Amino acid sequence: MCGIVGYIGKRQAVPVLIDGLKKLEYRGYDSAGIAVLEPEGIRLAKSVGKLAALEERIANKTFDSCIGIGHTRWATHGKPSDQNAHPHLDCKGNFAVVHNGIIENYLELREWLIDRGHSFVSETDTEVLSHLVEEYDGGDLEEAVRKTIARIEGSFAMVVMSRNNPGCLVAARKASPMVVGIGEEEYFIASDIPAILNHTRDTYIMEDGEIVIISDSGIRFTDFKGGHREKIVFQVSWDPISAEKGGYEHFMLKEIFEQPKALKDTLSGRLQDGEVILQEVDLTPEDIHNFNKVAIVACGTAYHAGLIGRKLIEKWVRIPVEVDIASEFRYRAPLIDDRTLVIVISQSGETADTLAALKESKRLGARVIAITNVVGSSVAREADDVIYTWAGPEIAVASTKAYTTQIEGIVLLALYLTQSKGTMPEEWIGEIIGELRKIPEKAEEILKNAQAIEQMVSLFDDVTSAFFLGRGLDWSVALEGALKLKEISYIHAEAYAAGELKHGTLALITEQTPVIALATQRDLYEKTLSNIIEVKARDAKVIGFTFAGNSSFEKTVDQVFFLPDTVNELAPLLMVIPLQLLSYYVSVARDNDVDKPRNLAKSVTVE
Amino acid sequence: MCGIVGYIGKRQAVPVLIDGLKKLEYRGYDSAGIAVLEPEGIRLAKSVGKLAALEERIANKTFDSCIGIGHTRWATHGKPSDQNAHPHLDCKGNFAVVHNGIIENYLELREWLIDRGHSFVSETDTEVLSHLVEEYDGGDLEEAVRKTIARIEGSFAMVVMSRNNPGCLVAARKASPMVVGIGEEEYFIASDIPAILNHTRDTYIMEDGEIVIISDSGIRFTDFKGGHREKIVFQVSWDPISAEKGGYEHFMLKEIFEQPKALKDTLSGRLQDGEVILQEVDLTPEDIHNFNKVAIVACGTAYHAGLIGRKLIEKWVRIPVEVDIASEFRYRAPLIDDRTLVIVISQSGETADTLAALKESKRLGARVIAITNVVGSSVAREADDVIYTWAGPEIAVASTKAYTTQIEGIVLLALYLTQSKGTMPEEWIGEIIGELRKIPEKAEEILKNAQAIEQMVSLFDDVTSAFFLGRGLDWSVALEGALKLKEISYIHAEAYAAGELKHGTLALITEQTPVIALATQRDLYEKTLSNIIEVKARDAKVIGFTFAGNSSFEKTVDQVFFLPDTVNELAPLLMVIPLQLLSYYVSVARDNDVDKPRNLAKSVTVE
Repeated sequence: MCGIVGYIGKRQAVPVLIDGLKKLEYRGYDSAGIAVLEPEGIRLAKSVGKLAALEERIANKTFDSCIGIGHTRWATHGKPSDQNAHPHLDCKGNFAVVHNGIIENYLELREWLIDRGHSFVSETDTEVLSHLVEEYDGGDLEEAVRKTIARIEGSFAMVVMSRNNPGCLVAARKASPMVVGIGEEEYFIASDIPAILNHTRDTYIMEDGEIVIISDSGIRFTDFKGGHREKIVFQVSWDPISAEKGGYEHFMLKEIFEQPKALKDTLSGRLQDGEVILQEVDLTPEDIHNFNKVAIVACGTAYHAGLIGRKLIEKWVRIPVEVDIASEFRYRAPLIDDRTLVIVISQSGETADTLAALKESKRLGARVIAITNVVGSSVAREADDVIYTWAGPEIAVASTKAYTTQIEGIVLLALYLTQSKGTMPEEWIGEIIGELRKIPEKAEEILKNAQAIEQMVSLFDDVTSAFFLGRGLDWSVALEGALKLKEISYIHAEAYAAGELKHGTLALITEQTPVIALATQRDLYEKTLSNIIEVKARDAKVIGFTFAGNSSFEKTVDQVFFLPDTVNELAPLLMVIPLQLLSYYVSVARDNDVDKPRNLAKSVTVE
Repeated sequence: MCGIVGYIGKRQAVPVLIDGLKKLEYRGYDSAGIAVLEPEGIRLAKSVGKLAALEERIANKTFDSCIGIGHTRWATHGKPSDQNAHPHLDCKGNFAVVHNGIIENYLELREWLIDRGHSFVSETDTEVLSHLVEEYDGGDLEEAVRKTIARIEGSFAMVVMSRNNPGCLVAARKASPMVVGIGEEEYFIASDIPAILNHTRDTYIMEDGEIVIISDSGIRFTDFKGGHREKIVFQVSWDPISAEKGGYEHFMLKEIFEQPKALKDTLSGRLQDGEVILQEVDLTPEDIHNFNKVAIVACGTAYHAGLIGRKLIEKWVRIPVEVDIASEFRYRAPLIDDRTLVIVISQSGETADTLAALKESKRLGARVIAITNVVGSSVAREADDVIYTWAGPEIAVASTKAYTTQIEGIVLLALYLTQSKGTMPEEWIGEIIGELRKIPEKAEEILKNAQAIEQMVSLFDDVTSAFFLGRGLDWSVALEGALKLKEISYIHAEAYAAGELKHGTLALITEQTPVIALATQRDLYEKTLSNIIEVKARDAKVIGFTFAGNSSFEKTVDQVFFLPDTVNELAPLLMVIPLQLLSYYVSVARDNDVDKPRNLAKSVTVE
């Protein structure tokens, strides 16, 4: 989610690094930094904010170095600040590290390192890496990095530079992308291809579990144990625009496909031994016992995540939950007091209505937990506690990975409250956690089948209206599916609780109306099926989504898509993915501007 | 709302009465009855259910009488039963009465009559009339009726027949329609023109405050004090189909125009000296104190009334309220117990999902109040308490007068709870009651201006989508406005909280999208206005509704309709009326079957 660049060659490193970072600028970030190795040692320049701030900081300085690393940060652990920006150094300033990903056991490592005399200057997880390298330094950087890797859990793409090995960069990757560009007697390291395209199209694409060592004696790859890895050169054919989108046609599609990783990252470090750990939430059992109500407040897609939260919290924690659209919340004189837990959800953390609702809730004495994707955002700062969705920057206006990770945030919080109140058996929590761990992989499975969704697009030719139907949690997901279709295809889509359609809206159903029927909830399946038959009787074309193995469903609907099996409560995490794909492909078929739909802005900072 | 027929002439009365009742059959009713005067006295035949049941009951009987009265009943006071069916007799069987309307002070009169030795056999308000006539009988039926009228409060159209005045019928009218048809040496009395069209087109239309005395010596009209009234003959030009619709083109339009009366009737007897009286609700102050939550459950239009209920009860009573679509309620494991007041709303009282939710609530121990339009319906029978909306039969599938009277029911209940809990000052309650009393008249004012709405219809030519926007209570009404337009015009209309549109759906707004903007809530006016400007910036055509006197509004919207002024909380009662008219006129312009829109049924008795 952050951006990494590295350079080693004959040129001045700083302009190459800054240029590389600029190429990653479109992705959004909150701070940036570079480190170069000069004869006197490592020189560091970091700045919170836009890249321009960093450039300004170095404008009057002269650098003389042909080796360096750079980073643009999207905060996960620790707010955006100069201090928390990468690169991070060890105690003596001998090693500099840039890192993408999440070190899950960083707190434990940090304590261990502090016990051994290391002192930390940032709040990041990354800083443990530079100190670990220092700890394990025996003169051979490659060896120190290998030993470091052996200690860490989580995901990473990192580049390490050492004062003691002046002509050398060591980089490693696990579950976070990294490429090496090959120039004339020079190498470029980057997390994303756009950062190197100005210089070369010849690359090595690093695989999980690989380390690369670039030095005067050339380049070589090993596995984490030091065993040799043979690599072949890959020639990038993408134009710069495609490269920004990771080879996808649009950011939205890229972000849809990033969901398995985003879903995995958001769980990262939060599921342990059948228990949910939320480090950023500081609720005591007494606090939780004191709550007599939960109020969820959000807008748009985040509101739809809130609707799921309501159902899960009420079911698991047995405490009343209300969900409000933020722009309505303040004006209905909500019954909020110091016994209310307010949960606000906002991808950007800057949504004006949500922020206002948050402030009003605080004024009324409520405890506020924020679920947001942006560390240090206004919502994150104003809330008492925060659960970050580690989805990384979302560029497409239509939200996808932010939504699914928001649901995860809600699920984690609901489980956290459940385990504190003991409202469900421990084994049950263990089972749900087990199912939750499998979600990223199942999301991947759905995405492999994207073509099946693409083939459904012809049903939407010349269509002006469409309906999404579902009961229970499927209804909540249907609302999000309809919103996606609206936003980017400009089809008037609307979601209905399947049992409610007959109370008026059924009048709109004709053979020209595609109906998207969601049936992932086993206990509601039969009733949903009868509602599907109602619309079929009006000649609607029905696309049905249900759990794998439910083959009888096929006979009723016109087209069917089977989802990997999971428990009812987690089905929304999977169910929405084919709906995102459907909206995407319909929008593409209509030649719309997928990533920037008309009339809309990514983050709504007005009321 | 009930149907009245009367005959006096040379023919056998029974076939004429039965034929007249048949002509009123389309309006729906729950029981019927006739009384004829034979030499031996008054003979009565009554039956709960369809007219066929009454016909069967008299099939083997021979009647010999040329004078009689008949009635089809739509229950208001007392469930549908043989006993409660009209006509009603006095103690000795000397007088028979049929009556439409509501006698507001019937309980007081009933007690007084019982004290004086009268005994009652029904639960109706009507039966006080026959006993009053008996009480005041001095040989002159006209005189007895006049004295009776002097004692009663409320609305009525009644016909009285007396054993002691064999050739005579006396009828009177106050706020309930009544006509007299003139034949050859015969007269027909009816509440509705279709009942007499088979026999004559020459009529006297009775006015409020008139009594008619028909006897061997002819026909004459007086006022309630006995003063002579001159009448002119009115020739009915309607065909039988128009006649059923009271001269309106469709039942829906008739029912929209019946709202001032329905609104007045539903308040009838319930507002007294700055206090709300709900005779059918038997909650003690302890019961009310015990509630820690209110849950409102309904479907379709009734659900929209429930949304208004939520806002009013939370604001006035300061108790949390949740509103659920009935088909969703049961399946989300609702947190309902013996401290929950559940309010179910259903026009027909037979809505399957609502009934199931009611039963589930009872099973969980909740106290259940029903708001319904049908006395003795399943919902009314199963609930602990009932508030009847006295809207009369609603025939058009698209609900209009049922909705506005449901809101009144909710307002009355909210005030009832408020006065019991003392959460608002008494003077404030008095003020709201004062405003409430003025609503029927203000509704009338809007209807007089219906043409202004009709002229807006061209905005909807070739339109496939429309949006309704509002904040707070306007949003709730917007949902109902959108549903009306969907149901009968088949335009895909959708309502949005005005502040929420920008979170995605704004993408659908173009110059082809009519936007109906509701701005009756003074405290939200400025914010709503900025949302209107947002859609204007996307070239949408905006029809705006606001309170009278807000003339600056006109400059922003394309077309404006001013509503009579009232307090924010009661604005929905008025706001919805022009929206009903708008849907109606758009549907007519599209040549749709207004009263029976495709795919829909009036009362949804499946899940």
